[in-house]
Amino acid sequence: MLTLTVADASRLGLELFTAAGAAPDEAAIVVAELVEASLMGLDSHGLLRYSDYLNWIKTGQIKPGAPAAIVRETATTAVVDCGFNFGQVSAAYIVGLARDKAAAAGTAAIVSQNCNHVGRLGAWPQKLAEQGLFALAFANSPQRGHWVVPFGGGAGRLATNPLAYAVPTSGRPVVMDMSTAAIAEGKIRVLMHQGKALPPGVVIDADGQPTTDTHAFYGPPHGWILPFGGELGYKGFGLSLLVEILGGILGGLPSTADSPNINGFCVLALDPDKFCGRERFQALMDDLSTYMTTTPPLKPGGEVVMPGALDFRTRARRLVEGLPLAENIWHLIEQNAADLGADLGWARAGFAHSLA
Amino acid sequence: MLTLTVADASRLGLELFTAAGAAPDEAAIVVAELVEASLMGLDSHGLLRYSDYLNWIKTGQIKPGAPAAIVRETATTAVVDCGFNFGQVSAAYIVGLARDKAAAAGTAAIVSQNCNHVGRLGAWPQKLAEQGLFALAFANSPQRGHWVVPFGGGAGRLATNPLAYAVPTSGRPVVMDMSTAAIAEGKIRVLMHQGKALPPGVVIDADGQPTTDTHAFYGPPHGWILPFGGELGYKGFGLSLLVEILGGILGGLPSTADSPNINGFCVLALDPDKFCGRERFQALMDDLSTYMTTTPPLKPGGEVVMPGALDFRTRARRLVEGLPLAENIWHLIEQNAADLGADLGWARAGFAHSLA
Repeated sequence: MLTLTVADASRLGLELFTAAGAAPDEAAIVVAELVEASLMGLDSHGLLRYSDYLNWIKTGQIKPGAPAAIVRETATTAVVDCGFNFGQVSAAYIVGLARDKAAAAGTAAIVSQNCNHVGRLGAWPQKLAEQGLFALAFANSPQRGHWVVPFGGGAGRLATNPLAYAVPTSGRPVVMDMSTAAIAEGKIRVLMHQGKALPPGVVIDADGQPTTDTHAFYGPPHGWILPFGGELGYKGFGLSLLVEILGGILGGLPSTADSPNINGFCVLALDPDKFCGRERFQALMDDLSTYMTTTPPLKPGGEVVMPGALDFRTRARRLVEGLPLAENIWHLIEQNAADLGADLGWARAGFAHSLA
Repeated sequence: MLTLTVADASRLGLELFTAAGAAPDEAAIVVAELVEASLMGLDSHGLLRYSDYLNWIKTGQIKPGAPAAIVRETATTAVVDCGFNFGQVSAAYIVGLARDKAAAAGTAAIVSQNCNHVGRLGAWPQKLAEQGLFALAFANSPQRGHWVVPFGGGAGRLATNPLAYAVPTSGRPVVMDMSTAAIAEGKIRVLMHQGKALPPGVVIDADGQPTTDTHAFYGPPHGWILPFGGELGYKGFGLSLLVEILGGILGGLPSTADSPNINGFCVLALDPDKFCGRERFQALMDDLSTYMTTTPPLKPGGEVVMPGALDFRTRARRLVEGLPLAENIWHLIEQNAADLGADLGWARAGFAHSLA
């Protein structure tokens, strides 16, 4: 495992994405999001993605510089064609629209078309919460990402379909970010890269049998992910359908088409100012947080934390300790750099001491 | 177990609620909802509640005839003071507001204050879906209903906090209605009345030990319900907080106050007409339903069904077979009738043959 400082991880991303043809301002948005995801401990949505995104630029899946176009708009709604720019660039645009509309009208609902991978989903409502709004976000994926079986089904029909929300408080916002599947595909990938087993009860192999082997999941023949909830998996299935409808169908995209879309992205935003008022809302959120975190723990030494709190702790620690990067991922990045003629000698020198 | 026809169950409710002082139009709304819940198989939110509601009228918790008042309003939002009328009367008013605002502006978000029990939560977005809208609903409860522990906690801090959504299709709408707890309190009550055990992993006793005994839940000393999700219960906890914020905090109600509120009710509505268009939305929902329900089943003889489909099947069967009512509930209703001087002789005669 290598360790990068935030500064080095950022410089690495900026050099690679600009070498691949991205404008510096767009590369900066993407890199800031991926570094932030690694800082928060969501490695599956962090530096791991540098290589993926560089490959997607090469194949034309990501089109740096592509403009966003509003297909349809009202005072509170919009359908945005993202033109296959980086998902983070598109999501930042959509979040800006949602902020402006919700702050003016009280509510906003924005959906995307032709959107790439938006990264850590919770990042987007978090930005709105940091500006005083209460926001939810949803991200589905088209057929090629349909790893998740519907409840009672033996073949994939949905993606891991995460949902997220964020709420302002007087401190860090509350940030909930969850897959509606039993496990996120990105987490399976991290476990595979680490040579670790899956937890039981989250994946079935191609024959429908439970497995903890990441390779039985990726195959061939590949397996499937179960919806979140075990015996009560109809709840995870229902939540996944909600994400599918908000992320895809509301914007006019069929679930059965092999769209090159990577994420269908939807943001709902509410301005507390039009309800109980921003100040009262924030005070009541502080009251709620205290009520929760002072609950006597179920087990000795246990703790109740608000959603996102552990990620913010990881962030504080990693700001000091640096960001982990698996060596096999680093080797993928080196191949990308060689393709692009980018010289990463400075980076190698910086963490050569931590190579095994 | 007694069996009532829909006509008799409705007449029973109308006679009781009007005898208790409700106007016929309000009694009709409440009775229609409770009968419909029993028809759909949600007995915990059906005829079981006649007696509760009659008791609540007696104690002043329900104030028949109380007007709803809009505390604050914009083109897309409202905070409604329900004045402690029947929850169903209040929810019907709020749903009407949401419909009008969403149809005009594309989005609507309405929250309540001083709202009683709204019954089957899915009923409310279902009404909006039947009018072409895509809607979500949330219902929290104040401190006296805080049976559910936060993830990792050993004392209740949240209610069973259900969420629901409904979506138009060319047939019956898709209707998802789920508690964010491992089990709804109403279901525990039904199991207790039936003398049955709880499923494992959903309830802990007052000492924090797992139990399947309904009496260990009701105590004294009473136990607690776990959030939905088992090992991944932080997801159920996060969803429960979402319901708490939308149902209570957004309307200005602290989670730590002993409010006489029974449900804090929130409806979000979106008009697909402002996104991909109502016709395309409905066609894509039909496509989604087919994609899901044609999934090969995981187990031989299994089936994938869309949310709500099994409830609509139960409805078709119970329209023919009648509505079940536990005898102990009937005896509670008889006591209410005696208090009110209502003559239920016709009802007793109607189902006397089915008494044990």
